[in-house]
Amino acid sequence: MTQNDDRGSAEDSLIARYFKPLATDPGAFALVDDAAILSSSGEDIVVTTDAVVEGVHYLATDPPDTIARKALRVNLSDLAAKGALPAGFVLTLALRSKEDAWLRPFADALGEDAKAFACPLLGGDTVSTPGPQMISITAFGRVPKGRMVGRTGARPGDFVFVTGTIGDAALGLDVLTGGATASALTDPAARDFLIDRYRVPRPRNTLAIVVRDHASAAMDVSDGLAGDLAKLCTASGVSAVINAHHVPASPAAASAVSAVGLEKLVSGGDDYEILCAVPEGRSEAFVREAEQAGVEVTMIGTIIAGQGAPQWIDAQGHEVTLRRLSYSHF
Amino acid sequence: MTQNDDRGSAEDSLIARYFKPLATDPGAFALVDDAAILSSSGEDIVVTTDAVVEGVHYLATDPPDTIARKALRVNLSDLAAKGALPAGFVLTLALRSKEDAWLRPFADALGEDAKAFACPLLGGDTVSTPGPQMISITAFGRVPKGRMVGRTGARPGDFVFVTGTIGDAALGLDVLTGGATASALTDPAARDFLIDRYRVPRPRNTLAIVVRDHASAAMDVSDGLAGDLAKLCTASGVSAVINAHHVPASPAAASAVSAVGLEKLVSGGDDYEILCAVPEGRSEAFVREAEQAGVEVTMIGTIIAGQGAPQWIDAQGHEVTLRRLSYSHF
Repeated sequence: MTQNDDRGSAEDSLIARYFKPLATDPGAFALVDDAAILSSSGEDIVVTTDAVVEGVHYLATDPPDTIARKALRVNLSDLAAKGALPAGFVLTLALRSKEDAWLRPFADALGEDAKAFACPLLGGDTVSTPGPQMISITAFGRVPKGRMVGRTGARPGDFVFVTGTIGDAALGLDVLTGGATASALTDPAARDFLIDRYRVPRPRNTLAIVVRDHASAAMDVSDGLAGDLAKLCTASGVSAVINAHHVPASPAAASAVSAVGLEKLVSGGDDYEILCAVPEGRSEAFVREAEQAGVEVTMIGTIIAGQGAPQWIDAQGHEVTLRRLSYSHF
Repeated sequence: MTQNDDRGSAEDSLIARYFKPLATDPGAFALVDDAAILSSSGEDIVVTTDAVVEGVHYLATDPPDTIARKALRVNLSDLAAKGALPAGFVLTLALRSKEDAWLRPFADALGEDAKAFACPLLGGDTVSTPGPQMISITAFGRVPKGRMVGRTGARPGDFVFVTGTIGDAALGLDVLTGGATASALTDPAARDFLIDRYRVPRPRNTLAIVVRDHASAAMDVSDGLAGDLAKLCTASGVSAVINAHHVPASPAAASAVSAVGLEKLVSGGDDYEILCAVPEGRSEAFVREAEQAGVEVTMIGTIIAGQGAPQWIDAQGHEVTLRRLSYSHF
């Protein structure tokens, strides 16, 4: 992309063909310079980096358009959870194949998402690799100075909210890899729904300003709700009580949960929903404004004082033991 | 790094152990949040991305400390050529090995360079790969609004300058891979000098403000001087006449050039020197201020009107034909 000076003309023509049309921002210089410009009028630039690796974060058999969307959206999800509005991204593409059949749908989908989320391509680098393909994206967002929503502000008494539904992506991966969900769930529409949630996250960028206005702490749920909540609590020096039966599940996930267990949903990862703590006095406004933004939010528990791991309780008030909190790609 | 939410605790502990000490900037939040903050007071943020891949941009046998320095410095070189002062970087590390014997010298050297170049680690992502290791860095710099030095401003009559010496890195790689340089050059000190130039670029960040103040166009030389000059000329809509015998060579390169040919030096790549066009009226100040900054600069030719490829001429005024302009990693 912009840094095309350090590769030969094969890269230049690949960039011109597939990625130049995405570089709509004037700061991208149509990808012919060594660097891009991110202009600023004194606000904070929020920077986030997430890479997806073939065979690790996506399946080699996933369609290229969904891989492109996932690579960008996992970063957009971080921006949303931090209360930032997207400003652009740079892309490092480590390619094994340079076939049009892969690159064309990849670039087209990336361009569609860049436009839909108002997050233009600013530059990048394209390298060859004999190994698995990898897409590394650094995305930028803007927040008013000092207003990024961190992980450290949750206080006892705050309500714990999540957006959307939890566990769909993990079950979708389980379907794709022939796990218990594959045998438990025979409805093709339900299976397709879950697979789609695995392949194409729905980052909650329309909620960014609502999160910024009301949340005391927030992060995106990418590694399993249980593990990510534990991290947020540790960072804030608090604990939490979570009502396991309040964790929002899609109809497809709800119909699979008896076969696969709750743990699969709350520790499975790849949700890309927002987890946040909201002071009680702000909860009503948070819920109302989230509804106006078109994002479903569910209160699943309460932040409490203490250093222990968050407690998960069932509808009868009994503690639920989770053996595994997170999914580890590493 | 900052985005450690989407991986398990193995990544968290790796990050805490090796990379947290590098995250000295308050905007890095000690790598425990999902994102970093790059503050701005209204200047332009210059963004550049370059990745290095094992077996492509560095050799698997290169020492890990030199790999770290190269990964950061190829990005610092872009910032220098754009007239920007370093502001920080994010790192995506695709690891196959997580051995302390590799990670410890890698992280230590990265930290030393981050400090020496005033370019702190802001965040990143660490992923596993079964394939070749890869280090992708996105670096940020600051310039006063509208003052980034582009590729498009070179005008007929401008002088063409390069920093340092050209071709050392390409010859160093040739020594390492048993090419013609290996047999032509028997002096161990000369061989070591060239190898070191291949492994550890010397980005010219002390020249950034001088370039910004005087150059009409600039880029870093990463892909071979001849090819990079052609790109700069194309972007500016001009051509150039270059005196091949004025291209600065180190003593080691000079003693090898009769065996390997000039083309190897000027099309070999990995120089990470600055190539720039400077209006004649500013050349004296440019040379003087470069000397004050401790960076050797050499005038190698003149920008001329026209659309053709730059002409290379020898000391007798004959045209030198270059069959290959650039080194392609792609």
